[in-house]
Amino acid sequence: MNYAEESLKKHYEWQGKIEIISRVKVKDRQDLSLAYTPGVAQPCLEIQKDISKSFDLTRRSNLVAVVTDGTAVLGLGDIGPEAAMPVMEGKAILFKEFGDVDAIPLCIRSKDVDVIVNTVQLLAGSFGGINLEDISAPRCFEIERRLTASCDIPIFHDDQHGTAIVVLAALLNAMRLTGKKAEDVLITVNGAGASGIAVTRLLNHAGFVNSIMCDSRGIIHKGRSDLNEEKKIVAEETNLKGRTGGLAEAMVGADIFIGLSGPGLVTQDMIKSMNKDPIVFAMANPTPEIMPDLAIAAGAAIVGTGRSDFPNQINNSLAFPGVFRGALDVRASVINEKMNFAAAQAIADYVQDADLKPDNILPLTLDKSVARAVSAAVAKAAVASGVARKN
Amino acid sequence: MNYAEESLKKHYEWQGKIEIISRVKVKDRQDLSLAYTPGVAQPCLEIQKDISKSFDLTRRSNLVAVVTDGTAVLGLGDIGPEAAMPVMEGKAILFKEFGDVDAIPLCIRSKDVDVIVNTVQLLAGSFGGINLEDISAPRCFEIERRLTASCDIPIFHDDQHGTAIVVLAALLNAMRLTGKKAEDVLITVNGAGASGIAVTRLLNHAGFVNSIMCDSRGIIHKGRSDLNEEKKIVAEETNLKGRTGGLAEAMVGADIFIGLSGPGLVTQDMIKSMNKDPIVFAMANPTPEIMPDLAIAAGAAIVGTGRSDFPNQINNSLAFPGVFRGALDVRASVINEKMNFAAAQAIADYVQDADLKPDNILPLTLDKSVARAVSAAVAKAAVASGVARKN
Repeated sequence: MNYAEESLKKHYEWQGKIEIISRVKVKDRQDLSLAYTPGVAQPCLEIQKDISKSFDLTRRSNLVAVVTDGTAVLGLGDIGPEAAMPVMEGKAILFKEFGDVDAIPLCIRSKDVDVIVNTVQLLAGSFGGINLEDISAPRCFEIERRLTASCDIPIFHDDQHGTAIVVLAALLNAMRLTGKKAEDVLITVNGAGASGIAVTRLLNHAGFVNSIMCDSRGIIHKGRSDLNEEKKIVAEETNLKGRTGGLAEAMVGADIFIGLSGPGLVTQDMIKSMNKDPIVFAMANPTPEIMPDLAIAAGAAIVGTGRSDFPNQINNSLAFPGVFRGALDVRASVINEKMNFAAAQAIADYVQDADLKPDNILPLTLDKSVARAVSAAVAKAAVASGVARKN
Repeated sequence: MNYAEESLKKHYEWQGKIEIISRVKVKDRQDLSLAYTPGVAQPCLEIQKDISKSFDLTRRSNLVAVVTDGTAVLGLGDIGPEAAMPVMEGKAILFKEFGDVDAIPLCIRSKDVDVIVNTVQLLAGSFGGINLEDISAPRCFEIERRLTASCDIPIFHDDQHGTAIVVLAALLNAMRLTGKKAEDVLITVNGAGASGIAVTRLLNHAGFVNSIMCDSRGIIHKGRSDLNEEKKIVAEETNLKGRTGGLAEAMVGADIFIGLSGPGLVTQDMIKSMNKDPIVFAMANPTPEIMPDLAIAAGAAIVGTGRSDFPNQINNSLAFPGVFRGALDVRASVINEKMNFAAAQAIADYVQDADLKPDNILPLTLDKSVARAVSAAVAKAAVASGVARKN
């Protein structure tokens, strides 16, 4: 099937992938008097007295805004706010289908960090959470950080944390299979955009303390003068032995390769230079950093990609619906690293020992019960870490 | 029934009156590949080439934001953005039930005109129209004016124009019954807030050129030094004979009284001072300017109120669902006075001659086919006035 052509045709037919319906029947005057005037004045007054009641008396408790500026959409780049909306609507239907979360796409006609932060702050009283989406690095880091500090609802940049959670889940199960230990392994991450940096941080939080990151100019180290603020922090937190050079140098002796970069950047020789039985997650879309058959021929023990037509699809739709479901269920004020870690562990644990194989380290992305396991774990972690406002 | 208590109970049960659903089933990988990656890239690229395609390929063509700052909610006043949301959700369900329009409530945490205008402008690419709601005067005028000038989608402040449309509809039918002519009558409007001013303007547009407006300090005339910018325009456009004094003086010899003010402000003596067979629309909620039985005893020929428990309920739910349905159907760039007039005429015409009586001048607010008649008339007027972008 020609997905491009068929998808376009379907989008013309669908006239939008989401729809807003009424949960209340309005058949007679009494219905109208309860759902609208004059009765509606009473819930309004209750919220005026106590704003937290807006979670009980409006849809806020189940409603997430999927916010983008259209600057980093799929592999298409900066295509503009309106053009990003088919992706945002796709995200919204996954939210509903997998997490029973109501999600409304909002695109912002500005690339200015201050403007985006202000706009989301001004609207935060309408929602129970904000999913930032497809906002380019490094602006996405500052936007998320400032919104997390200023808003009383969870802010989650899915390109960062959704990806990080699923990569960690995949890695935890790869470790189960290979018997490697987090503290012993060296991880090489190629691609220092939003997802690469978030992956490296969550892995560090989970005990994978020994990593090296590369951007398009090679290994990130303290000696480089061309690093933005975010990469300067990366240089402090990674590459403990101060390696220099390109990707080839970064991969020598590594146990794990994580690619969030571009097509075909990894050669078989690079795989051969890695430690014994290496784990290779080549997630560039649609063409991986190295094709799975080539990686395996070069000695890789486990290979994952972002694609649905190869084994071990590492796709953040395994994470975000359950993460928000869990956060909303306990009315979490933030989504923190403990909750992200709990989500990754829940996804990993979902694969039973008997099913765990080198070509089956993750649940299928279409398995709707994964989100339930994730939401329970995330809710528990929110309570344990003191950010839940409801039990 | 105690509506306040029962409505509160229902709102706790409902947990929100709206819900966002998927129009697309996601059961297998192929579904996912068409609604989401990789297929979704194609509709994105189409919109990037031509932003107007966002109306065809996303829900934008049917999606309206109901935007408030919570400053003028029902009769409750400035209760804050979150507290306004039960009303906005009520509005959203009426949009869906009566007009099949998807409406999402958004509250803005600011009362600053510039901030509200900027916020809506930044989000306008997400929607096919904006319904401003419960924003206090005189800020609402500037907000609507600036947004109409800067956005390429319809901006409609329902408290102004929805009310104006339905008052005009009621008046057109009252004129049918009494045989009075628009150019001959004097109208006294009490209440110079958003709705009062909009009503007076639309009536003027419809040929009712002779009107007097009063605010809480009495008749608005050019000699007053306490008028804001909006009321200065009112002083230029109304009160052609330069009357001065209070409401009592304004009503002497008037043919029509329109109250958008407060409870009990009109006496029987004032009604008696009006011209023969006066028309009295006393729309203060929940207690009218004068109760219908008193007005009729004092000689009123036709009486309307805002209440559902008296005849002739003048309620803007007769207008806004059909107005937006019509505007969206032809992808109108604005909602102009011609469209508002067409909506009023359609509502008036909906009452057949045989049914038209002094206590039956409007369709019932729960009659869902009214919106269809309104939308057809509005769409036609949009095309005729050159603001339609689709036929």
